Amino acid sequence: MKTYLVTGCAGFIGSNLVDYLLKKNNRIIGLDNLSTGKKFFLKKALKNKNFKFFKIDLLKNNIDRYFKNVDRVYHFAANADVRFGLKHRKKDINQNILVTYKILETIKKNKINEIIFSSTGSIYGEATQIPTKENSPFPIQTSLYGASKVSAEAIISAYSEAYELKSYIFRFVSILGDRYSHGHVFDFIKKLKKNKNVISILGDGNQKKSYLNVDDCIRAIDLGVRKFNKNVNIINLGTKECLTVKESIKIICKILKLKPKIQYSGGKRGWVGDNPYIYLDTNKIRSVGWKPQYNIKDSIKQTARYILKNQWILKKKN
Amino acid sequence: MKTYLVTGCAGFIGSNLVDYLLKKNNRIIGLDNLSTGKKFFLKKALKNKNFKFFKIDLLKNNIDRYFKNVDRVYHFAANADVRFGLKHRKKDINQNILVTYKILETIKKNKINEIIFSSTGSIYGEATQIPTKENSPFPIQTSLYGASKVSAEAIISAYSEAYELKSYIFRFVSILGDRYSHGHVFDFIKKLKKNKNVISILGDGNQKKSYLNVDDCIRAIDLGVRKFNKNVNIINLGTKECLTVKESIKIICKILKLKPKIQYSGGKRGWVGDNPYIYLDTNKIRSVGWKPQYNIKDSIKQTARYILKNQWILKKKN
Repeated sequence: MKTYLVTGCAGFIGSNLVDYLLKKNNRIIGLDNLSTGKKFFLKKALKNKNFKFFKIDLLKNNIDRYFKNVDRVYHFAANADVRFGLKHRKKDINQNILVTYKILETIKKNKINEIIFSSTGSIYGEATQIPTKENSPFPIQTSLYGASKVSAEAIISAYSEAYELKSYIFRFVSILGDRYSHGHVFDFIKKLKKNKNVISILGDGNQKKSYLNVDDCIRAIDLGVRKFNKNVNIINLGTKECLTVKESIKIICKILKLKPKIQYSGGKRGWVGDNPYIYLDTNKIRSVGWKPQYNIKDSIKQTARYILKNQWILKKKN
Repeated sequence: MKTYLVTGCAGFIGSNLVDYLLKKNNRIIGLDNLSTGKKFFLKKALKNKNFKFFKIDLLKNNIDRYFKNVDRVYHFAANADVRFGLKHRKKDINQNILVTYKILETIKKNKINEIIFSSTGSIYGEATQIPTKENSPFPIQTSLYGASKVSAEAIISAYSEAYELKSYIFRFVSILGDRYSHGHVFDFIKKLKKNKNVISILGDGNQKKSYLNVDDCIRAIDLGVRKFNKNVNIINLGTKECLTVKESIKIICKILKLKPKIQYSGGKRGWVGDNPYIYLDTNKIRSVGWKPQYNIKDSIKQTARYILKNQWILKKKN
């Protein structure tokens, strides 16, 4: 029985990861400041004797005590808000760079040998190579979120090079599924709940994105960690499909049984730093036997239905 | 007449830049905490009425007042110590990431439209493409210094994307020339001054590096800023030659008129995170008419002679 520490354990991906790891009979120490994470997501986990939850702030609190006798750290805590990165710039610097640095120092101090890090396809900026490979041309960052994640990746790699620390960096596309509580499906449903007749969409609606179901994401992480053994392992996660915002809104309207007038703000980007097209080459993770079990349309439907069943999520400040 | 702010103005490269910009009849505001910079390097500049020097700490002090009516910022302050990055890890995070973030916030506040940043070839890690182009495959960081510089680059790019800020990021190889005060020529001469009979060298001596003279470096920066006009401009600087540590020590011994026994510690890296071979593709800066005027051997000789003439440098804590 292994002991894993999960930061951001009450988040969308973090809480799904916790459930998965508990099912595999591991002992889990979960840390979250509940700023965007929700304790409700841990309802099932909290009933499990192998799960210990601590509400702490990774930046402000002393975190050392939680890292004793830990076999592996899943560092999933982050400021995951790409879109509003420019409104609270210090947040990306603090939550994504400084917290990662602090986690690495604590890992080093406690002689932990493995870190799994949730990164993002946003770090490829406006990729010149599509599908985008892990070793695609050196990107220029277009968002502060991407910049902060690429910084965290870089610092992790440097610690891996220097110390006995194997690192797994997963670069995700947008993730969908149960407990999804931030992103375009969320925004659209929230808008339609306010006004079922008209919905305004950022950009021209042709922004294409590749989405991945959270279940597929977590299975890929589990497999990737077992199969890859370099010192620093960088692995893209995504599907081979993609969907435009236009197509997505259609599916969502159908689920909601609404026929609103759709107004596009225009322009190829939804906001400053938005990447109009993120499509990752996932041959690396596929080469070890992974493939997604959900298609994007089903994931959008599942996500929309989840939000409809859990409308309290829409009321929470995100 | 333009007003330029130079951070790290008393450093090796910064002080040479200040002299160059003053000669071109600009007004210069120079900031330095003199932790590694030396006021002696500003001797000539301080006699010029267009130069104002302020000894301040960019991280701790309020820096806003120095950024009023500034046309361009040359952000050259940094913890430039690649080799000892692991001994004082917080230094790279603070001096190279957090200070850059603070500079960018101050630039934004004061509506300054241009930043010139001194980055490094170290950010290519152990490059898979040699010569290494600006858009070579996405590297994995091998040093905390490289990681901190790539983080700073990323944050600068994100600000450029979001605000009216043109950025110029120059990735240097190691720089040689007058006022050189840290690096292998420095270390070798220091060792030989202590013991002229034996010198121990880190690694196997076959580490090849491409060096650039500080005069060529500054001319390239000046030209690059005038010729390139993208929002984010990333430009490698280096020579087409390279030199092994073995060859370098030979030249240095000849200048010092010494014939020590040379002992190599072995291994292809001088230290953890050392890149055994840095060789940058410099076709981009060459395409606008730049070429170096010094060859590497002459630069090593010039540097060694400068240190011999200024032996007080060897005594300073570096």
